[in-house]
Amino acid sequence: YAEGDPLWSYFRAVAGQDGEIDSEELQRCLTQAGIHGTYTPFSLETCRIMISMLDMDHTGKMGFNEFKELLSALNAWKQNFCTFDRDRSGTVEPHELNQAILAMGYRLNPATLNSIVKRYSKNARIYFDDYVACCVKLRALTDVFRRRDTMQQGFVNFMYDDFLQSTMAI
Amino acid sequence: YAEGDPLWSYFRAVAGQDGEIDSEELQRCLTQAGIHGTYTPFSLETCRIMISMLDMDHTGKMGFNEFKELLSALNAWKQNFCTFDRDRSGTVEPHELNQAILAMGYRLNPATLNSIVKRYSKNARIYFDDYVACCVKLRALTDVFRRRDTMQQGFVNFMYDDFLQSTMAI
Ligand SMILES: [Ca+2]
Ligand SMILES: [Ca+2]
Ligand SMILES: [Ca+2]
Repeated sequence: YAEGDPLWSYFRAVAGQDGEIDSEELQRCLTQAGIHGTYTPFSLETCRIMISMLDMDHTGKMGFNEFKELLSALNAWKQNFCTFDRDRSGTVEPHELNQAILAMGYRLNPATLNSIVKRYSKNARIYFDDYVACCVKLRALTDVFRRRDTMQQGFVNFMYDDFLQSTMAI
Repeated sequence: YAEGDPLWSYFRAVAGQDGEIDSEELQRCLTQAGIHGTYTPFSLETCRIMISMLDMDHTGKMGFNEFKELLSALNAWKQNFCTFDRDRSGTVEPHELNQAILAMGYRLNPATLNSIVKRYSKNARIYFDDYVACCVKLRALTDVFRRRDTMQQGFVNFMYDDFLQSTMAI
């Protein structure tokens, strides 16, 4: 029950009057809380897709339970990133993102993996913000797919509007 | 034929040794050329999705023909944005993005439109960079859909890998 949760008053303070967290509030809160540690703070764009990942009702805002779920996902991703970034350079290698994606349990063919890793690289390195953006999108799009693939056949049917609504926000 | 095209030597200069334009080169070139005019220069994120929009072979880079196509799309979007931004505040209203999307010929139901407009707004305004990001994604995802909807039935079948490869980069 939310009221008894130590995070509840923190959530209330971040969310402000409307009782929900939008992308600017999320960016401010993650920056202040220092979740990024020694890395560059999250971009607003990454905060937007973090919200979209859990935003089932397409309001662009985040309630308490989603907030908690996001924090726990962020902690896991950060830990993962730190494991690879041994020299604390703030970046990991393409083949390490590759390994991380497979370790998270995604089964992708090499061509798909390859194009994903390329997309989130800068000068053949992956920065923390982009790493998280990649994890967010991968999780969000996989959720979109799985929710529709109820028979687990490995393929899914989309109407045009459903396809756009599911992918434009992420 | 490319050699006779006045843009060719410009493209060569931007693309550098590898003969193709990546997202950093594109950002530098668009900023120097001042395509954004009085608006904020394009973010690297928007430059990345600009490349993805036309990147059929998933290399993350752009050849000459794609570059020309992008410039012409950008000019059209900018003109459109300026038409709405009469007071040159650098932003347009949500209902104007709504109108612009419909005017571009996209047929979306109100719920889809609504969630798209919300996603690309900041404090209930749409900035030029986000406006272009929205146009880029809408065009890219619609192309993805149409290429698969060859019978124009309004729905499409995706395998998991194909779905991710088509949407993760955009
Ligand atoms: Ca709020
Ligand atoms: Ca919501
Ligand atoms: Ca180049």
